[in-house]
Amino acid sequence: MPRAARLSVDERRARLLELGLELFSRRSYDDVSTDDIASAAGVSKGLLYHYFTGKRGYYVATIRELARRVIAVTELDPAQSLEESVRNALEQFVIFVRDNADFYRALLRGGVGADDEAQPIIEKVRQTVMKRILSAASIDDPNPRVRTAVYGWIGFIEATSLDWIANGHDHDENELVGMMMASFLALVGVAFRVGN
Amino acid sequence: MPRAARLSVDERRARLLELGLELFSRRSYDDVSTDDIASAAGVSKGLLYHYFTGKRGYYVATIRELARRVIAVTELDPAQSLEESVRNALEQFVIFVRDNADFYRALLRGGVGADDEAQPIIEKVRQTVMKRILSAASIDDPNPRVRTAVYGWIGFIEATSLDWIANGHDHDENELVGMMMASFLALVGVAFRVGN
Repeated sequence: MPRAARLSVDERRARLLELGLELFSRRSYDDVSTDDIASAAGVSKGLLYHYFTGKRGYYVATIRELARRVIAVTELDPAQSLEESVRNALEQFVIFVRDNADFYRALLRGGVGADDEAQPIIEKVRQTVMKRILSAASIDDPNPRVRTAVYGWIGFIEATSLDWIANGHDHDENELVGMMMASFLALVGVAFRVGN
Repeated sequence: MPRAARLSVDERRARLLELGLELFSRRSYDDVSTDDIASAAGVSKGLLYHYFTGKRGYYVATIRELARRVIAVTELDPAQSLEESVRNALEQFVIFVRDNADFYRALLRGGVGADDEAQPIIEKVRQTVMKRILSAASIDDPNPRVRTAVYGWIGFIEATSLDWIANGHDHDENELVGMMMASFLALVGVAFRVGN
């Protein structure tokens, strides 16, 4: 197959995923039919099945795309200090949460998102974030206490984000990032220095 | 209906729930058949349907029972200081998590537990814990920052518990409670004093 044709397939797939992120951010899985998706995308249902083997496959691919984006926006810049790089990542993450609020909430708080296929994707994001933080803190082999503290902090980040979404973003993004950062510094102070 | 007969119904129901907590802690929802349940309980399938309208109803009733127990063991003693009462509640909670590890994990990390019926029950537990802490801290009307911080702390507690379970309880209960408590004191220091 010529290269141009392959690229065009990738592009079309990327556009369909982009659309999925929009659709599932505004409406739940059950609310969106295959017809809705095909008509919003301007493609045939056959093509959708061809790319994603149906609505469920499309949904899971969209979750994977969301996970890929979270991981992309929360990269830690090795040129910065640990504190600075975490703060920048959190700023990007909070914007991401704001822009994908409904989908993010559905994924983490049940509905069809919290099923057997979605959970490993979400857990992989957590493990990736955990590894990055430990690596940025130069901890190769965390003791159980440090590992639990970092994983717990990720739980704090998720829960504060969900509370913020559930209450209509009733404090501003800087304040939320400030709370996340304060809890991170407490973690660094308590777990990293004491634990390793 | 005479009082003795009613009690006996309640007792039988309580025993069935007790059995459900054991069954679903060791095996997943899909692994357990209605026949398994009836035979383990020594009752007919008909009786199970009579009490719980089937396996799904039985499962949801078991989740409700688990939620009732979490709420019962984490009560805050008003005769104690905030710090002391939270520490005692966390000690009880960690024992609870240890004893119901698999069920707890299935509920919070997907599988059938994370469906539309289970989620509101779990969320109600979080809201109850949050209200208790705010009430014990004499905060009637938390500002958004304090509310988010307490909700985030509950997320920290859940995540540290899950990490502890997932890694075979590789540090001891006192250490886990110590970490939970340290994060609580950081929360009290940061959110309660600054925020309200």
